[in-house]
Amino acid sequence: MNNIKSYLKENKKQFLHELIELLKIPSISADSAYKKEVLNTADFILKSLKKAGCSHVELCETPGYPIVYGEKIIDKNLPTILVYGHYDVQPADPIDLWHSPPFEPIIKETEIHPDGAIFARGACDDKGQMYMHVKALEYMTSTGNLPCNVKFMIEGEEEIGSESLSWFVPRNKEKLANDVILISDTGMIANDIPSITTGLRGLSYVEVEVTGPNRDLHSGLYGGAVANPINILTKMIASLHDENNHITIPSFYDKVEDLSIEERVEMAKAPFSLEEYQSALDINDVYGEKGYSTNERNSIRPTLDVNGIWGGYTGEGAKTVIASKAYAKISMRLVPNQDWKEITELFKNHFESIAPKSVKVKVTPHHGGQGYVTPIDTIAYKAASKAYETTFGKTPIPQRSGGSIPIVSLFEKELKSKTILMGFGLNSDAIHSPNEHFGVWNYLKGIETIPYFYKYFTELYILELNTKRFNY
Amino acid sequence: MNNIKSYLKENKKQFLHELIELLKIPSISADSAYKKEVLNTADFILKSLKKAGCSHVELCETPGYPIVYGEKIIDKNLPTILVYGHYDVQPADPIDLWHSPPFEPIIKETEIHPDGAIFARGACDDKGQMYMHVKALEYMTSTGNLPCNVKFMIEGEEEIGSESLSWFVPRNKEKLANDVILISDTGMIANDIPSITTGLRGLSYVEVEVTGPNRDLHSGLYGGAVANPINILTKMIASLHDENNHITIPSFYDKVEDLSIEERVEMAKAPFSLEEYQSALDINDVYGEKGYSTNERNSIRPTLDVNGIWGGYTGEGAKTVIASKAYAKISMRLVPNQDWKEITELFKNHFESIAPKSVKVKVTPHHGGQGYVTPIDTIAYKAASKAYETTFGKTPIPQRSGGSIPIVSLFEKELKSKTILMGFGLNSDAIHSPNEHFGVWNYLKGIETIPYFYKYFTELYILELNTKRFNY
Repeated sequence: MNNIKSYLKENKKQFLHELIELLKIPSISADSAYKKEVLNTADFILKSLKKAGCSHVELCETPGYPIVYGEKIIDKNLPTILVYGHYDVQPADPIDLWHSPPFEPIIKETEIHPDGAIFARGACDDKGQMYMHVKALEYMTSTGNLPCNVKFMIEGEEEIGSESLSWFVPRNKEKLANDVILISDTGMIANDIPSITTGLRGLSYVEVEVTGPNRDLHSGLYGGAVANPINILTKMIASLHDENNHITIPSFYDKVEDLSIEERVEMAKAPFSLEEYQSALDINDVYGEKGYSTNERNSIRPTLDVNGIWGGYTGEGAKTVIASKAYAKISMRLVPNQDWKEITELFKNHFESIAPKSVKVKVTPHHGGQGYVTPIDTIAYKAASKAYETTFGKTPIPQRSGGSIPIVSLFEKELKSKTILMGFGLNSDAIHSPNEHFGVWNYLKGIETIPYFYKYFTELYILELNTKRFNY
Repeated sequence: MNNIKSYLKENKKQFLHELIELLKIPSISADSAYKKEVLNTADFILKSLKKAGCSHVELCETPGYPIVYGEKIIDKNLPTILVYGHYDVQPADPIDLWHSPPFEPIIKETEIHPDGAIFARGACDDKGQMYMHVKALEYMTSTGNLPCNVKFMIEGEEEIGSESLSWFVPRNKEKLANDVILISDTGMIANDIPSITTGLRGLSYVEVEVTGPNRDLHSGLYGGAVANPINILTKMIASLHDENNHITIPSFYDKVEDLSIEERVEMAKAPFSLEEYQSALDINDVYGEKGYSTNERNSIRPTLDVNGIWGGYTGEGAKTVIASKAYAKISMRLVPNQDWKEITELFKNHFESIAPKSVKVKVTPHHGGQGYVTPIDTIAYKAASKAYETTFGKTPIPQRSGGSIPIVSLFEKELKSKTILMGFGLNSDAIHSPNEHFGVWNYLKGIETIPYFYKYFTELYILELNTKRFNY
């Protein structure tokens, strides 16, 4: 594989061009207005997999958006890697905060990305990182460097809860049978500090509606005498955290794993500058659960955040009104062992219980998923670690991520295989935010590193197999 | 004036037709998109005053919308009544809750209005009630029943704080010189329980902005570690009331007048059914400041209501985002002696002081006005009371209103004259709400009652004058 660098050099322009074409399609799964574009994106991926050397590709129908499947089976005795990714993206709003249109990709240099970064919705999450795998496969098949079997499963509903995938996986266990699941939908600490994500948080996403009077009221004639649903909603939401920023929902923490001092000391070794963190976000102080560091707060601890709130008059000028209804979208990030369905139920019961008699409350669960912790003693982790060492010249640091890929725990349950998370994005890439981007260097580094994972994983797999045989 | 009933009978159809034409013009002063319509409404009023018999009418230019002025001076030795009203209306949203378009007036019967009610934005507040005075004048001039001088001052910015009127009045003291100011921009208890409003609440309206990180963030990667401006805003707003629903802003209550037990007992005599109140609003319980009745809470006590709140993702589906900014529109109803500028300052200082270091807070005052209490021992009150007795057959009950007409206290300060508030609308007329309406019976009853006020006020004025002379 000593030719990978030259191969990348030759194809860099083409690889960037293809990703840019992919990023031009607004595949926003959350908004039904973009249905056609989401479907077009699935077609784009299908063709790309075919071009990359898959011997069989298909669009698998589901109750929702199709799942793009592709495979290249070279030898039943060799291990099989299942690559997972998603072709849908987050909504782009607030549009007005983008410096260039979210679906008109452009490459700009930044302080962190001196070789340039591609700015577009989905550049990093997950089109860019998913497409690295397509191009890595293309390299391996076209240069005779594919050491094992590979399957691709690329979905179109990750940003809205992967419902169709949850339907698809249990129904296609044989088709999806594999020895390891490989995902690039997370980040690493820095370009000079490679890291492997060993933990993901779970998620419970709900919408709440508080109803007061049956119509909007004049705040002068009724103000002070009837419950104002907005005031009540703020009171109810505020009460979900205590003065130490612990979440007050009864039993919420019951199943949260307590990390040992040793583990926390190990985590604390990851390089981190609070000053840089704050200045990057232009904040004067961090804020979170008492007794935990910033890196712990956004990785090993569960959280509760309001993602959206609205009610009453929000137009120009002033309107002295008491609204009939107020709404909020609330999501909780969960840690391993917290069951998202159980937490959703706890939230619903608690939120309804704290509502004063003077209002009506409705809690509607949106979606959710379980947290996950990947073991670091597997051949998959060892292979990934070696791959990074080869291309980055450094041993990667195991790191818990605060993000969620709800589907990962389902994979383990249904397919009985572990997942390895090789992320090449950076936290500063602004995923889910305006001006999302992905470093050109990171994109190419990913394509360079992935084939080494295939190589080392296959070698370690065979070695392990022989050892087992020998032990008989 | 025994011909007033027959006159109304003859002209009922015409009077309704004219009001409906007036209500068709969307004169929303809060939204600059309606500027043309607001100006057209001013013209409509100007022509109406001319037609009603004013000997001089003019559109008085101001920094904002013009003030419509009209007068009929019959004798310098007779008293002068200054009629105040406004031709602008509240925004109509939420539009989807209207059963008929807000600016396509229709007459429908309701339980409370068996003779029908006119449904349209502004029907009661204040076009309908203001136009009663135009038609009452028309009756008096056309039938030789005008007993005194009259001036009209109709503004177009009442719903946004009357800034131009505050500019206009001090500059036109002579033009506006009068012996009493007559306003119909309030309500009465019920069609069979006439009442005269003797108190108005003041108002302070502010907008707040809470800024956290400099961009929207991924709630997984940052959730729990940075201050979420929406969570913080809910905490800050919630803290503005304590567990007894007292407002927690330091010194907020310092100047609030404490009513005597006797006064509160007098107030409590006004007929009121909590059961009907709750069922009319479809609420299971009322909600407000501990230690006060519903009627006290919305009249003699100050309040703090959120009129609008927004931030983060409010579209379809789910977005796991931590917003950069969150906003709220907050208004405080004030009672006599509370100075709105002082209260606005107290709010600003307090709200900024309770913000955690991790966010930035901006408080922008919108507008405001002072509360007002009208004495009940004046000839104006006696004349109004006699007028109601004549047309309703009942002595009206003095009643404090929770609403605000900020300009009233300015009139007293600048023009040195008292205001009498003769309201003919009902609380159930849904002013500032979808499906605002005004009873046809109330509209005509107002036109019938107003001339009697002119008659009795003039008689009592002359009587008082002679008594004074006699005392020399």
